Amino acid sequence: MRLNHLCGVLCGLVVLGLVGVTRAQDKLPSWNDGAAKKAIIAYVENVTRENSTEFIPVDQRIATFDNDGTLWCEQPMYTQLAFALDRVKEMAPQHPEWKEKEPFASLLKGDLKGALAGGEKAIAEIVMATHAGMTTTQFEQIVKDWIATAKHPKFNRPYTECVYQPMLELLTYLRANGFKTFIVSGGGIEFMRPWTEKVYGIPPEQVVGSSIKTKFEMRDGKPVLVRLPQLDFVDDKDGKPVGINSHIGRRPVAAFGNSDGDRQMLEWTDASGPKGARLMMLVHHDDADREYAYGAESHIGTFSDALMKEANDSGWIVISMKNDWKRIFPDQ
Amino acid sequence: MRLNHLCGVLCGLVVLGLVGVTRAQDKLPSWNDGAAKKAIIAYVENVTRENSTEFIPVDQRIATFDNDGTLWCEQPMYTQLAFALDRVKEMAPQHPEWKEKEPFASLLKGDLKGALAGGEKAIAEIVMATHAGMTTTQFEQIVKDWIATAKHPKFNRPYTECVYQPMLELLTYLRANGFKTFIVSGGGIEFMRPWTEKVYGIPPEQVVGSSIKTKFEMRDGKPVLVRLPQLDFVDDKDGKPVGINSHIGRRPVAAFGNSDGDRQMLEWTDASGPKGARLMMLVHHDDADREYAYGAESHIGTFSDALMKEANDSGWIVISMKNDWKRIFPDQ
Repeated sequence: MRLNHLCGVLCGLVVLGLVGVTRAQDKLPSWNDGAAKKAIIAYVENVTRENSTEFIPVDQRIATFDNDGTLWCEQPMYTQLAFALDRVKEMAPQHPEWKEKEPFASLLKGDLKGALAGGEKAIAEIVMATHAGMTTTQFEQIVKDWIATAKHPKFNRPYTECVYQPMLELLTYLRANGFKTFIVSGGGIEFMRPWTEKVYGIPPEQVVGSSIKTKFEMRDGKPVLVRLPQLDFVDDKDGKPVGINSHIGRRPVAAFGNSDGDRQMLEWTDASGPKGARLMMLVHHDDADREYAYGAESHIGTFSDALMKEANDSGWIVISMKNDWKRIFPDQ
Repeated sequence: MRLNHLCGVLCGLVVLGLVGVTRAQDKLPSWNDGAAKKAIIAYVENVTRENSTEFIPVDQRIATFDNDGTLWCEQPMYTQLAFALDRVKEMAPQHPEWKEKEPFASLLKGDLKGALAGGEKAIAEIVMATHAGMTTTQFEQIVKDWIATAKHPKFNRPYTECVYQPMLELLTYLRANGFKTFIVSGGGIEFMRPWTEKVYGIPPEQVVGSSIKTKFEMRDGKPVLVRLPQLDFVDDKDGKPVGINSHIGRRPVAAFGNSDGDRQMLEWTDASGPKGARLMMLVHHDDADREYAYGAESHIGTFSDALMKEANDSGWIVISMKNDWKRIFPDQ
């Protein structure tokens, strides 16, 4: 039986070897072997193979990612709103008038619902009070200090550790294949830039977001940019293609989102080239156990039935958090 | 005399070898060996040497360049204005009302001075009539078609060949040393992006400029961005640091300009770190024979006495086109 034995050893080695190769080549280890993972790999292999009819030159490999709900957790409230609320509490001693003035009065009593009853106007007041009036350098430091210490209320860990491990792997996989990765978020551009390079490997110049106006000034003989309480640009919905055009100046070939706010970005990407050369994906939050389950009825990250229909009709891929992701956060 | 002979041969080889090394290492061959060239090389070697006290990590090596008058010729008029005037002539048959309406009436009679007598308002009208009303894709094609055929009136060659060879070498030298090069220009962002990658090696996402507003729309079921006749942002003077902050999100460590429009960009760069770790340079057009000589009194590219004083006081380096540059354009 020496021959059989030898064969067994060889077969064992071959199997081990193949497993080794497969594991070494698996750039998306936190993704289950489902349709979403297969689609990503098929797409990347197709558009980067030089003799492919859908080959995309390196300089045109632009991939855009929404942030809230796509790269990190957006429940139970947008992280930037949590930041703003903490800022209101910290700034309150310098603003005695807030005790009588909405939305601040409700906020300081811990009544978030009451504070937000004023709708967009109330949110804008909170944002301007907490995000304007200082220089860009000062604001950057405020964000860095907060993000280093604040913790997510459910997961009890820094917000920057409430990022999705499968998406981190996707970012790395795309970059390894020559893609330039951008964030295109409704969130504040200067709220994201202080930490996106460290957390996502995305440098400040590849972050697109909403903004308030800034003004150049000389203070004590030194130039500063002062953040003004005036809206500059809203990088959401219709605004996403506008922001992409303004900041990137080319159309993405791949785009990733999770809500109605990302619809136009995906449409803009989809229509920019042949089907096989474009990849559009939406993260669906259907995992109440490991993260959150929400969608059509949610006020945050609304994933309407109309969006689901458009995704199905257009061949956009819906990622099921529950079924497609082996794990959610980096250290799980 | 065999020893002497041998020595002569060896010395000759050594000299030849050294010359060879020097030539091979000269990354700025179109620059004369003056103070400007020395300053560039000393700066780059200093901030890229790991044990230097002024060492700058690669991700922070941001260099910004004005375009008109810094990277390409801006006389006898801004190239973008020449483009707009050609567009007016081409569009005139569809606009019979222009025969009676200023500034178009004067323009169509060939009276540029009369047309521009209306000042900024007249220029804005010309710009909006020629730069708005089409989709971004259509405008890109219009620019590409024009830039491929239009010629500079003095040099009788395409505008894209009226770029400065010494500055092309500087861009390449900086990139070879890990710098990311950006354009920060008062010119239209979408007027530059169609050709900057080919001409300067600067991709669209690294071009910052002035802009008009765009609007996302569905036309025949396809998404488009329509260019609106509304000013969005003026990337000049005070606007340059604002544009840099918005698009790049970090402060440059090196900045290059040629006029009062670049003053704030250089101040913003200068104040962002220690003197030895920052490089600020201004191209001075003092070469009437090979290009143009203009400065304090010019309406285009004004280089005021106040700017010259600030440059001297601040240790910014003024490049003399006449003395610092061996040649001006690529094929000279």
